[in-house]
Amino acid sequence: MPEAVFERLKHLPFEDIGFAKVDHHRAIRQGYAEVVFGKGKTPAQVAEIVRVMVRHKASHHNVLVTRADPKMFAAVKRVSGNAKFHALSGVITIERSKEISGKGTILVVSAGTSDIPVAEEALLTARAMGNRVEHVFDVGVAGIHRLLEHRMMLTEARVIVCVAGMEGALPSVVGGLVSVPVIAVPTSTGYGASFDGIAALLGMLNSCASNVTVVNIDNGFGAACVASCINRL
Amino acid sequence: MPEAVFERLKHLPFEDIGFAKVDHHRAIRQGYAEVVFGKGKTPAQVAEIVRVMVRHKASHHNVLVTRADPKMFAAVKRVSGNAKFHALSGVITIERSKEISGKGTILVVSAGTSDIPVAEEALLTARAMGNRVEHVFDVGVAGIHRLLEHRMMLTEARVIVCVAGMEGALPSVVGGLVSVPVIAVPTSTGYGASFDGIAALLGMLNSCASNVTVVNIDNGFGAACVASCINRL
Amino acid sequence: MPEAVFERLKHLPFEDIGFAKVDHHRAIRQGYAEVVFGKGKTPAQVAEIVRVMVRHKASHHNVLVTRADPKMFAAVKRVSGNAKFHALSGVITIERSKEISGKGTILVVSAGTSDIPVAEEALLTARAMGNRVEHVFDVGVAGIHRLLEHRMMLTEARVIVCVAGMEGALPSVVGGLVSVPVIAVPTSTGYGASFDGIAALLGMLNSCASNVTVVNIDNGFGAACVASCINRL
Amino acid sequence: MPEAVFERLKHLPFEDIGFAKVDHHRAIRQGYAEVVFGKGKTPAQVAEIVRVMVRHKASHHNVLVTRADPKMFAAVKRVSGNAKFHALSGVITIERSKEISGKGTILVVSAGTSDIPVAEEALLTARAMGNRVEHVFDVGVAGIHRLLEHRMMLTEARVIVCVAGMEGALPSVVGGLVSVPVIAVPTSTGYGASFDGIAALLGMLNSCASNVTVVNIDNGFGAACVASCINRL
Amino acid sequence: MPEAVFERLKHLPFEDIGFAKVDHHRAIRQGYAEVVFGKGKTPAQVAEIVRVMVRHKASHHNVLVTRADPKMFAAVKRVSGNAKFHALSGVITIERSKEISGKGTILVVSAGTSDIPVAEEALLTARAMGNRVEHVFDVGVAGIHRLLEHRMMLTEARVIVCVAGMEGALPSVVGGLVSVPVIAVPTSTGYGASFDGIAALLGMLNSCASNVTVVNIDNGFGAACVASCINRL
Amino acid sequence: MPEAVFERLKHLPFEDIGFAKVDHHRAIRQGYAEVVFGKGKTPAQVAEIVRVMVRHKASHHNVLVTRADPKMFAAVKRVSGNAKFHALSGVITIERSKEISGKGTILVVSAGTSDIPVAEEALLTARAMGNRVEHVFDVGVAGIHRLLEHRMMLTEARVIVCVAGMEGALPSVVGGLVSVPVIAVPTSTGYGASFDGIAALLGMLNSCASNVTVVNIDNGFGAACVASCINRL
Amino acid sequence: MPEAVFERLKHLPFEDIGFAKVDHHRAIRQGYAEVVFGKGKTPAQVAEIVRVMVRHKASHHNVLVTRADPKMFAAVKRVSGNAKFHALSGVITIERSKEISGKGTILVVSAGTSDIPVAEEALLTARAMGNRVEHVFDVGVAGIHRLLEHRMMLTEARVIVCVAGMEGALPSVVGGLVSVPVIAVPTSTGYGASFDGIAALLGMLNSCASNVTVVNIDNGFGAACVASCINRL
Amino acid sequence: MPEAVFERLKHLPFEDIGFAKVDHHRAIRQGYAEVVFGKGKTPAQVAEIVRVMVRHKASHHNVLVTRADPKMFAAVKRVSGNAKFHALSGVITIERSKEISGKGTILVVSAGTSDIPVAEEALLTARAMGNRVEHVFDVGVAGIHRLLEHRMMLTEARVIVCVAGMEGALPSVVGGLVSVPVIAVPTSTGYGASFDGIAALLGMLNSCASNVTVVNIDNGFGAACVASCINRL
Repeated sequence: MPEAVFERLKHLPFEDIGFAKVDHHRAIRQGYAEVVFGKGKTPAQVAEIVRVMVRHKASHHNVLVTRADPKMFAAVKRVSGNAKFHALSGVITIERSKEISGKGTILVVSAGTSDIPVAEEALLTARAMGNRVEHVFDVGVAGIHRLLEHRMMLTEARVIVCVAGMEGALPSVVGGLVSVPVIAVPTSTGYGASFDGIAALLGMLNSCASNVTVVNIDNGFGAACVASCINRL
Repeated sequence: MPEAVFERLKHLPFEDIGFAKVDHHRAIRQGYAEVVFGKGKTPAQVAEIVRVMVRHKASHHNVLVTRADPKMFAAVKRVSGNAKFHALSGVITIERSKEISGKGTILVVSAGTSDIPVAEEALLTARAMGNRVEHVFDVGVAGIHRLLEHRMMLTEARVIVCVAGMEGALPSVVGGLVSVPVIAVPTSTGYGASFDGIAALLGMLNSCASNVTVVNIDNGFGAACVASCINRL
Repeated sequence: MPEAVFERLKHLPFEDIGFAKVDHHRAIRQGYAEVVFGKGKTPAQVAEIVRVMVRHKASHHNVLVTRADPKMFAAVKRVSGNAKFHALSGVITIERSKEISGKGTILVVSAGTSDIPVAEEALLTARAMGNRVEHVFDVGVAGIHRLLEHRMMLTEARVIVCVAGMEGALPSVVGGLVSVPVIAVPTSTGYGASFDGIAALLGMLNSCASNVTVVNIDNGFGAACVASCINRL
Repeated sequence: MPEAVFERLKHLPFEDIGFAKVDHHRAIRQGYAEVVFGKGKTPAQVAEIVRVMVRHKASHHNVLVTRADPKMFAAVKRVSGNAKFHALSGVITIERSKEISGKGTILVVSAGTSDIPVAEEALLTARAMGNRVEHVFDVGVAGIHRLLEHRMMLTEARVIVCVAGMEGALPSVVGGLVSVPVIAVPTSTGYGASFDGIAALLGMLNSCASNVTVVNIDNGFGAACVASCINRL
Repeated sequence: MPEAVFERLKHLPFEDIGFAKVDHHRAIRQGYAEVVFGKGKTPAQVAEIVRVMVRHKASHHNVLVTRADPKMFAAVKRVSGNAKFHALSGVITIERSKEISGKGTILVVSAGTSDIPVAEEALLTARAMGNRVEHVFDVGVAGIHRLLEHRMMLTEARVIVCVAGMEGALPSVVGGLVSVPVIAVPTSTGYGASFDGIAALLGMLNSCASNVTVVNIDNGFGAACVASCINRL
Repeated sequence: MPEAVFERLKHLPFEDIGFAKVDHHRAIRQGYAEVVFGKGKTPAQVAEIVRVMVRHKASHHNVLVTRADPKMFAAVKRVSGNAKFHALSGVITIERSKEISGKGTILVVSAGTSDIPVAEEALLTARAMGNRVEHVFDVGVAGIHRLLEHRMMLTEARVIVCVAGMEGALPSVVGGLVSVPVIAVPTSTGYGASFDGIAALLGMLNSCASNVTVVNIDNGFGAACVASCINRL
Repeated sequence: MPEAVFERLKHLPFEDIGFAKVDHHRAIRQGYAEVVFGKGKTPAQVAEIVRVMVRHKASHHNVLVTRADPKMFAAVKRVSGNAKFHALSGVITIERSKEISGKGTILVVSAGTSDIPVAEEALLTARAMGNRVEHVFDVGVAGIHRLLEHRMMLTEARVIVCVAGMEGALPSVVGGLVSVPVIAVPTSTGYGASFDGIAALLGMLNSCASNVTVVNIDNGFGAACVASCINRL
Repeated sequence: MPEAVFERLKHLPFEDIGFAKVDHHRAIRQGYAEVVFGKGKTPAQVAEIVRVMVRHKASHHNVLVTRADPKMFAAVKRVSGNAKFHALSGVITIERSKEISGKGTILVVSAGTSDIPVAEEALLTARAMGNRVEHVFDVGVAGIHRLLEHRMMLTEARVIVCVAGMEGALPSVVGGLVSVPVIAVPTSTGYGASFDGIAALLGMLNSCASNVTVVNIDNGFGAACVASCINRL
């Protein structure tokens, strides 16, 4: 490629802090919150990235650390006093804006109690990205009447995030009941032939409902990102 | 083991025809029809086994050849004039008894049109083994109202065989609606991440309904055997 | 679906306690004990669910917590004084009824000493659900005479739960010796190419005995549920 | 569930034609075209289902048969004279309405020449469902300048369907360049360690771009359904 | 390595015929027959290799072509008039010696009729390598009395080759009945979760009988080689 | 089966100690040491089984506990004072006989330092079963001259046990150098695409040397059993 | 990204012929031949792409079509009279330059006769890209002396491409004998547990020789590309 | 093989220290540093091997211990005072030579912060083997402008090592931008469907850039070895 092309690319807004390049550009472009994926980073690294994010002038975005643990939270807390830790899902949130920019409601539906951590990650992410959120928990397909009771909420949502482990059948049933997009999140709950979420993942990829798409196992964050991105259209 | 033990075992009723040992004992003991698994045998082998079965004095059992093809049928037809071929499922039946020995009704439920061959194998097997049978086809979970319409049949069955491919979610929903045993049969329909039935198999093994058990992929025959065996209790 | 349908569904008996919906309806419908799956829940969540179960007026069902640990037991013990902990299988039982409602005996057969925890889960579950139970342990197929010694018990059972790891061959041999249904439970014992129970699972799904069905790896609970459900027919 | 609930469900609009239940309700509810999945059905079955669809009074929906072959097309042609066959993707279309109901443009991007059949299935589906469609073909990530040349089309689309086999990296790069949802479709092209699309599927599920979701391998139809469903919001 | 080492290695007896190096050395060293693996070679290549083998002065070894087809046989027949084709197993044999050099009897036991082709490959190989051979076919573990009837043959064998598909349980049972080595051969018979022999392979690798070893799926030839090699000790 | 058969089987020599049936018969029949598989048992269970073994009058067999840990050793030590613990392989031995009953030498060859624990398990087992044993360690195929240096030992062995992880290529090279049986043991050493021994296992199953058979991953014990069983022929 | 960047990128030399973008830029930049991957394209598509390649003024590169069949060759022959077809590997070559630009010799080593097609693809590719090439065929590790005989060629090569199926052990042994880079190509030859090349692929990825890297199964072309790219350094 | 051959092989320079054979020959032949793979060895074993390496007269090679932990470092420190520990990657280095023997620069590029440990292992290895090294971290493909900014470094490198987890797409993009060899290292970072690096591994094996080869998951060491080996050509 011509050199000039690459010269121009240097001025895009990211900051190189050695071990990471903080990409303010992405948050600006996508209206997303600034996000750190905690797993595999040290508490010091996480806190340093958050410090750069919070310091940045052009941004009033909410800050989110996913897959965090109490040690990371302690380090982040020293950088930003109003950080909050959500222990079930391991999410740290720093609220800097309450603005709602999503057009409708994102509904998070989950199948069993063990799926709640992933569902909470999705809920916190969708809220931090400026969406109205609702949730319905513990509505597995083997007790179909429990799901049907909440049909009003299903039909009022603009996007649905559907979290389930084991056989991962919930998105198919939910997808058949609504006409909006359903983002399916397989979870690694279960045991034996659930194979840490593979059974649920395959079930969702083979869904017979045609308004269902799938994200990675336990990826509540990613599902909420896509849902938020759809909800801004 | 002591030799005497093995001497005694010689007199159990099976016939050795060289490449196969026809086990009349099993049919007697289990009240089952005499069955030949066609796949991997030559038409001549299938016909010879059927000939021995039909000839046997002590038995009035129905004869069933599964995984058969037209060539096998032609060969069997020469051995037994009243043989019938069911092309969809590849099953040959020779009816020698109309006696109903099962106590209740076995219901075969299937999810999509592509699952019908396996469902038919289950139906023909259950009938040949002396059971009343009913069926409901094309009731996938993404159109839950189509299944619910048939709830009366679900609640009247004594055993249910539930056939589904893709995400294999039907047994979980059916299992949640009834209190009788549900024998789940994954099918190899679908494509891509259905992995020739693995997705459905895993979905069923992870069913959140506790009255569901599973047989091998496409094993309509085996599901009907178990259902029949339960229906005699 | 018409709104009226969903209105009606609201009055089914389950209680919403926030993170879980306790489904008394299922226990009533299926004659099952009230059951909590412990894994993935906090001790406090388990105890709260048990509290709701025990409090419920319409029910005298036994209560069972599976996949529990000593911390969960301590929490449950505070809610219900007569709770008992079975350490090998990690099962908590609260006996509220000694009524036997199953028609025959459920026999639990297991292959090796390492399979006993899963076998115990099956035994305790079947007993809590109102069945007479018997067991035969340590009868692997490489010492076939040890199994054959117990043939009387095999032939007297109405349903057999067969627990085995490694090559998972026991259900095929047992299935060939009896005419009643055999519920096969693969276990995650073994090492290397046992792949945490996959070898046993595949062995059982491919069983050449036609009265064998399969549940998930280590799912002693599920096998006992199905066995109990069959034993009430 | 109460009987009345199930009584009400009987009157939903689907037609039972024996081997299939044609669900007009779904098309009405979701604004979708009427669709037949050809694979695993006989030409006669496909034609019969199409006949019922075309005959139905309340519907002016376009009709689509996916995974069809020339024999199916011949049978369908006899039922509906204006049926067209798209040989590359194996799609039969019957256009009954030219109405555009989607709000923006759906862009289909594909990586290699071998991915074109799946991309065409997506294009035809999206068009039949009432969307404006555009496409960019043969823009694999190893020649990044070929993709970047089309950046204008990328930024003008409201939803992007991204089709790629082999390493499945295209959706990550595309997702990083836009702020709209990207529906990723892995294809079964490639050989060896592509494992019939598994490599691409896993690549997409692990995409580091947070606006990417995934459908089943080769499921151009499903991707277009979701895209269309999003494009109506 | 020093050059002299490699100089010396040049004089070992093999012939380079361009696309293959015929290794007379191996046959001499191991007392094996000369063997060609047919699959993946053209009929002309197979015939040319056989021609070199037959021509060789120092050898009176029997010649064996495995995984052959009728076209290969026609080509070989032109090179050696006394070649014989065994259609079931696809083995071509050219007998040049009737000498028995193995010390005892090699017994080939197989589980089902579909396993016979692999069992025949083992039988023909063992015989060509100068062993006395016996066989017992169709003795699956679900009819344990059929196996026990042949116990005398089991106890008289010096080495046992045990061929089984599906759950692959036969070697465990056989291994428990004898004290000689059992070479287990999984076969690719079966369907669904047999996964072309993986279920049987895993079952055999996890055998609870400690005198069992395993060769590749369908590798009747390899099992006979090992058995022959043991039988010469 | 006739009842009389099963009556006779009751008198075979095993002792039922509740959770286990100690099978003296097997040791007698196979000339094997008495063996306990430690993994999955409690120290108390292990010690109790050893106590029964040691007490038994008819036996002077050596006793072996595999997959043991220091706690098990402490418990066993209280039952039998001359128990020894081999920490690398986790094997407990109780020597009660020094008799050599195997005809030749069993050579254990291993590829890398990480494979030594499994190789040691094989060595101790073979010795306890009455065989002369030798070993060659750290001779991986990427330094072929280190292996070739030990060729004398290779050619003098009557049976070879070959232990290797990673690509598992050693048995093929060794098998090509000798004419005796080679028992290949894949190990779970390595990382990444070694998949806990699967790579080595598959490599060995596909060995191009025809005198190679395979046992389970890390199964040094099993390999030695087979080798010992061959060495008595 | 700024628009100007993308404007500049438009002028890179590739031609858009509708279904494909012929990238002359890559050939120029990498000194590679112009290459078409035939599989999954129609004969007409292949011929059209070749026509554009041959027509292009700035290029005297050799043209290569891989994974071609006789029909493709017929179509290409009409476009370029001096096209040659290599049936074993399915490669079409159009020689337009005999220039040798690689600095040393690329040696292609293969293990068995069945690996020759992949080895030939590598040879033809390396030659077309301007390299001196040599080959050694049929030198599997179970006959290590056959490989060692060719040690002179091994040590004289500047880069080695090593092709092997089954256990894929050859690259480890070769890698240990030389100090130059070894590009390992697993092939899909073999059967059963070779799993279409997975066994060889895993073996090579786990190679204990540290100068070995790996390309996709059967990817003789890719290995030669990398070798050629190294040979120009 | 002739005995003389093996006699000669005895004099190659390696030292047998019981549990390991230290192969000075390899380091001499390949110009490599002396390397110990720490994982699976005890601290004492590691230190002993290092002691032998450091003591050896003929060698001034740098010493490298990979996959080490603090305990190993403590033991090594006692043997060689100038040992250094790199905690992130777990590498111990003992610098004994600063000589640069590689001809160009080896560039290590990595995708995310979690990939840095593997990238550091590659960097330290390449440096210890006498190469000039550079690195670019945190340039994932979803922010393509961050990678393009470093294009100068990409084009100046003689060999590139490219480290990435998740979808493993970076090598394809990098490979398309340069004409030198790219050694791709998949990492086990990520979660869910990354399957501990399988997704990245498959992505890289299927790379559409033809100058990419692959090493084992997390094998930064191996990638640097190959890169170094190429850089000496």
